[in-house]
This record gives sequence, C-alpha cells and structure tokens, in this order.
Amino acid sequence: MSNRELVVLGTSSQVPTRERAHHGAVLRWDDEVVLFDPGEGTQRQLTLAGVSAASITRICLTHLHGDHCLGLPGILQRMALDGVDRPVDLYFPASGQEYVDRLRHASAARGALVVREHPVRGDGLVDTWPALALHARALDHRVETYGWRLEEPDGRRMLPEALAAHGIEGPDIGRLARDGVVHVEGRRVAVEEVSEPRPGQSFAFVMDTRRCEAAVELARDVDLLVCESTYLTSEEDLADSYAHLTAAQAGQIAAAAGARRLVLTHYSQRHSDEVLFAEEARRHFPDVHAARDLDRVPVPPREVPEPHPRR
Amino acid sequence: MSNRELVVLGTSSQVPTRERAHHGAVLRWDDEVVLFDPGEGTQRQLTLAGVSAASITRICLTHLHGDHCLGLPGILQRMALDGVDRPVDLYFPASGQEYVDRLRHASAARGALVVREHPVRGDGLVDTWPALALHARALDHRVETYGWRLEEPDGRRMLPEALAAHGIEGPDIGRLARDGVVHVEGRRVAVEEVSEPRPGQSFAFVMDTRRCEAAVELARDVDLLVCESTYLTSEEDLADSYAHLTAAQAGQIAAAAGARRLVLTHYSQRHSDEVLFAEEARRHFPDVHAARDLDRVPVPPREVPEPHPRR
Repeated sequence: MSNRELVVLGTSSQVPTRERAHHGAVLRWDDEVVLFDPGEGTQRQLTLAGVSAASITRICLTHLHGDHCLGLPGILQRMALDGVDRPVDLYFPASGQEYVDRLRHASAARGALVVREHPVRGDGLVDTWPALALHARALDHRVETYGWRLEEPDGRRMLPEALAAHGIEGPDIGRLARDGVVHVEGRRVAVEEVSEPRPGQSFAFVMDTRRCEAAVELARDVDLLVCESTYLTSEEDLADSYAHLTAAQAGQIAAAAGARRLVLTHYSQRHSDEVLFAEEARRHFPDVHAARDLDRVPVPPREVPEPHPRR
Repeated sequence: MSNRELVVLGTSSQVPTRERAHHGAVLRWDDEVVLFDPGEGTQRQLTLAGVSAASITRICLTHLHGDHCLGLPGILQRMALDGVDRPVDLYFPASGQEYVDRLRHASAARGALVVREHPVRGDGLVDTWPALALHARALDHRVETYGWRLEEPDGRRMLPEALAAHGIEGPDIGRLARDGVVHVEGRRVAVEEVSEPRPGQSFAFVMDTRRCEAAVELARDVDLLVCESTYLTSEEDLADSYAHLTAAQAGQIAAAAGARRLVLTHYSQRHSDEVLFAEEARRHFPDVHAARDLDRVPVPPREVPEPHPRR
C-alpha cells in the first residue's frame, strides 16, 4: 500500500447505479486523509474500501450539488460517534454556506465534532497544512464550483554517502534538516553539501466543469490529476449544456497541463463500461486510469533523479 | 410478485457494515408505495432492489436520528429529477420539524417536488388514504418517535355463485359494490345477499423503542409487523440503556399483539448473522423473517374463509 494514493469510493454522477455509488474519493498523503466531494453513501463506501472515517483529516467540497455533498452529514456524524476529538477542516465555496449549515445539522445526533469551516471566496491559496498547501480556482459549472490543487513544497533529499563522508549521523541529521547547518568536530556543514533538491509532489481535483483554462492551471505539472468525465465525445453537446466534460476533454486537459497521471471518474449513468472513457482520453494522454468503485490509484512515485555529481 | 409486500432496503442500525446498508424499507400495498425510515444510501438500495424512486407515494419517518432519515434528501431530489409531478406525503414527529426543513433543502437541486408535510403531534389517526388509514403511537426512544400502523377498512368479498344465482353480471356488480344495492329484472338485491365480509388487512412498523405497551397496541392483530431488533438477549442491558429492543422482545411483542408475521431488522453492527435474531424471536413467536438487505417479504394473504353457508 502506497502512502500516497487515491482511494476511489464512488464514480457515478447525478444518480447511483447498480455498479456505481455516488461520487466520493479519498486522497491519502502521508499523514493527511482528505475526503473529496462525498456523495450519498460515502459512509458505507469507506467501510467497503477499508478506510476508517475517523482517519479523515480534511474534507473538500467542489460545490453543493447533492451528488457531491449529501454524504457529508453521515461522515460528520460517524466521526463524532467514533470519538474523533481533533478538529476537522472543511473547505467549500462560500456561496454554499446555507447548504453546509443544513448538512452539518441535518438530523438529531449525539456527540460533537469540531468542524473548522473554510468558505472559499476566490482563486488562490486557501490554507497551508503542515506538509501541503491547498489552492483553489473557480471552475465553470452551473453553480459556484472550485477545483482544488495540493502542493508539497520543494525539499531536499539527504545523500547517505555524503552524510557518511562528513561524519554526520544520528540526531545530527535531524538538526541539519531543521537548521540547514550542523557542526561536526568543529567543521560547519551546510545541508546543500550533503543533499540534493527534491521537488515537491502535487495533486489536482477537477470537477464539475466545462472546458476552461482554470482546469488546466489547477492540473499544471501535477503528479496525479482526478478529473470528471461525465460524457463521451458523442455527447459533447450534452456536456456543454450541462457544464460537464467529456473523457476526451479530460485527456486534453491532462496533456495541456503536463500532468503525469489522469484518473477519470463521475460517469453518466448512460455508460456502464468505463473502458470507453479510458479509450477516449488515451487518444490525448497516455497514463489514464478510468476508475471503478473501490479502486486504489497510487500517486506516481517521484522520478529517481540522476546520480548526484560528487564535488 | 405479490401486490402487498415489504421490500427490505437496508437492515443496519446506527452504522452500515459490509453486508448491511443503513435502514430503509418500502411497503408496496396495491397502489401505495410507502417508504419507511430512509437511512443514508436508500437511493442506491432502491436501484438494487428494482424499486423506482418515482413510484413512492408516501414517506413515514419514525424519528429524526440520522440512520432513519439521512436518505431523505437523495430520495426527494431523485423524485424531482425523475419528473414526479404529483404531491408526495411526508409523515414525521412534529418535534423533528427543524431537521425535516434542513433535509428537504440540504443541497442545491434542480426541479421541485411538491411535498405535503404531516407533522404528528400525538397518538391517533394521522391520515386517511384512499385504501388505508394511517395511525401513529408514541414509542419509548431517546427522542420523540412514532410507530406506524396501516389499516385497511373491512370490505366485502363478492361470491360468484351467489351473483350468478341472482343474475347479476357486468356493470351491475360495480353498482352493487358502490351503492350496496342493485335492481335486476325488477328485484332488489342487497350486497349482503351475494357477498361475505372481508376483514381489512393491517400492517405495523415499530422502531426505535424500548419495550412498551404502545408497540403491542400498534401491532394488534396485524398481518405483517416490522419490528426493530437491535440486540440479542445477552445485551438486554444495552438495549434498555439505548432504548432499543432485543430480538426476543420483538418476538414477545408480536405474540402479545397476535400478529401473523414478524419481520426483524435494524441489527447492531456487532452481529453479522441475522439467524441469531430469528432463533431468539422464534422462542416466542412462530412466523419470523429475519430480514437481509434486498429481501422481499409478502404480506400473508388473507386466510381463506370457511365456505359460505347458502341461505
């Protein structure tokens, strides 16, 4: 099991089918467990996927249509029931505040979960978590909708041989990472001497939307892009009139953005075979995973850098 | 397929499990399709059960705990989406009004379904439908909770031989049923001469509650009783402290009430085998069906009356 992976809970748009639950997805990223757009039934899908509701650290809603949020009350009540006593952060378009208020108090429930609300009022940096920054950009849907982008800051990878050559070991390695410098036997060693740059990874979550530049900007150079693909190319007119994407358009967005891997989801009930979506997207972009319920899709590992040139 | 049957959607209390969805049940009774206590995920369970959301005529909520109502928003939005243009009646405890308000408008939705609200403020007759009367009685739970009872009025069954003997046929049979009398070749024939009494059937839905007299009164002589059985006898203390029933207590209620058939549901997640519940209830009552998700349980047909004594 990767420590950075997408757990797909449901893949249906609008209405569930025999094969597909309403949309829902979890991103596991080291210590963060981020739930995106929980549709009705997300609580049970988590059980089927083997992910504990109590492990969720953040919840992001792109918009307040039912198929993207009606699972929220069950999740919040379940987390309270399971005794979660740390705050949970909830990100959503500010214009959806009235619905968030109702969803948070939709039925009589015991226990209280502390929810920190983050209504989003425009493009830009939304929040900085310990290991990731959350950015939002407005998409082009029928109600206010934000796509999400998670960015890990660039870091450095320690080089074991270089550390050994300088006699740095044990707690000194932690000091070096924290302070950028350490003194060993009277000599000053800077972190740059014993490490190489490690670019941060990134992730984007794009739904629901028409084709728009914001989708490409959210997905710029990400390691993993999750993108709605409600329709096939033969239904491009429908996609446009309901403000959705086709699978081909999702592939074009991934290609234009230079993403590394594309996950398709949020399919119209018209199509029970997700392979059709994968085929259309692959005409534009190579690494396509057309998700099925309960799939796990790893964030591609960092590319191994070229061997470090010794000074 | 019987035209009077219970369609079991989900059988879990509090939280769903791998095997069991949150509670939900539909009673199909001739032209009525009554949805009881839709927990989260009811929309998809209907699809899996082959019951159209658009066919629902009434919705009854015993109380406003999440596992009995968080499926309501999805059902109402789905019915609107599917173009239902007749009103839908919604029955619920009046003290749950604030939650009903939120559930009805929980997220941004297109379309409008006309919902006629019937907040219930005490025991007694709640509404009279074309073919059934709905009665409520307060149960003993942690929040205001009403059990439901449906009663078909007594009618008469026409006797083909007697009709033929009086020369009554075609539209005259309808006139006789409507007016109670018909004239054939100058002779007056009263309905009593060519029919026998046909007692109405009845149904009760009891959850969530501690043992109480109201549960027995709701279930008095019913053809089908649906009763919660959250726990087993070994957990009687838990049942009492959380205001729930054991399977044995459900069997005792069915026996004391003189019900004909008992359906058990709403099981604690502790027990994955519903046979344990059936065994405990059968020590007190013979005709027990421990429900599994997606089961269909017929309302037992009327007992065939003794042959009619000819006058």
